[in-house]
Amino acid sequence: MSEKPGLFISFEGGEGSGKTTQIRRLEEWFRHQGRDVVVTREPGGSPGAEEIRNLLLTGDPGRWDAVTEAFLMFASRRDHVERTIRPALADGKVVLCDRFADSSVAYQGYGHGLGAEYIRNLWALAIGDFKPDLTLIFDLPIEVGLDRAGARFANVSAAEDRFERMGVEFHQRLRDGFKEISQTDADRCRMIDANSDIDTVAERMISAVKDGLTRQGS
Amino acid sequence: MSEKPGLFISFEGGEGSGKTTQIRRLEEWFRHQGRDVVVTREPGGSPGAEEIRNLLLTGDPGRWDAVTEAFLMFASRRDHVERTIRPALADGKVVLCDRFADSSVAYQGYGHGLGAEYIRNLWALAIGDFKPDLTLIFDLPIEVGLDRAGARFANVSAAEDRFERMGVEFHQRLRDGFKEISQTDADRCRMIDANSDIDTVAERMISAVKDGLTRQGS
Repeated sequence: MSEKPGLFISFEGGEGSGKTTQIRRLEEWFRHQGRDVVVTREPGGSPGAEEIRNLLLTGDPGRWDAVTEAFLMFASRRDHVERTIRPALADGKVVLCDRFADSSVAYQGYGHGLGAEYIRNLWALAIGDFKPDLTLIFDLPIEVGLDRAGARFANVSAAEDRFERMGVEFHQRLRDGFKEISQTDADRCRMIDANSDIDTVAERMISAVKDGLTRQGS
Repeated sequence: MSEKPGLFISFEGGEGSGKTTQIRRLEEWFRHQGRDVVVTREPGGSPGAEEIRNLLLTGDPGRWDAVTEAFLMFASRRDHVERTIRPALADGKVVLCDRFADSSVAYQGYGHGLGAEYIRNLWALAIGDFKPDLTLIFDLPIEVGLDRAGARFANVSAAEDRFERMGVEFHQRLRDGFKEISQTDADRCRMIDANSDIDTVAERMISAVKDGLTRQGS
């Protein structure tokens, strides 16, 4: 049991923004400080949520309409929060999560046009005022991100590529959405320019984390 | 294509209340009048909703908490409404549905204590003001219903028995919940005393349907 309080950091951004690599870098950084770290991701992150993830990420892009998709996302998120994230935070761990509720605001709210307000209503009904202590939003011009994601998905099984195939306009709305989210919740969110090499982006991230933790007094 | 407008009737009630048998009776009654009838059920009723049903009805009673369960129920309901019910009604068909949104109000709202107001908020976010034209609530003392359900489930595979195993107090809250629903929405809902033989209950149901249709001018 750590003496430090738990810390919940979410990673957001479009496809190919390098989140996964940077999560590993931040995990190392916290471990060097002696912290217990849990790395998790959405949709998924608990046994039930992983089953819902399978419904969400496979099949045709039109398999679910935007509203059904939003309800499934928050069903899986509720399970993930109650069964994985809250228990880890109660144990004083650092939780690093690849995507969280801001992804629903961006994807279903801005990308599919349900609106940010609609998604924030679902957010409140699903998990109340629970939110990350800090959210890192990795920003990248969409052509660069889709090129990177395309190169990745050409080399692996494309079973979970439903969101990658949604078109350039959709990904532009996503990027604009994440910018608005970072302005709406400026205390919690840090935009990170991800259009550089891995080491440079990692430096920007660590700097944003230090700044965020100082502000919170952690 | 029928010239009559579509008609949506939902069947509600606790376990063992005879809904399934009575749905078949009402299906015959409408077919004798030359109506096209679609019989469906929740959770499920469309390919996507059936996959969500599988997550909801199998496994331990504590597999999902009440909030996650409510979100999964409305995810499946949204899919069912958009892909099965609305298209059938647009074709002028009679849709008979074994359980609908009132079951979420009763099971998750009253049974699991989330409250009717909470569930009605989810209802509005999932399907707006869409609701049945008529809802038939089959009422039975809970000992009688659980005896009937127990006899049925002893004879078949008990894979989908998660809700049957939830205890007498839960089923009492359900019954009280359905009574309150019928009072809250008295124009749409008809309580039917189901503690009689099949023919007698069928007569009560047909009488309630005729009365309901006359009131609606169908």
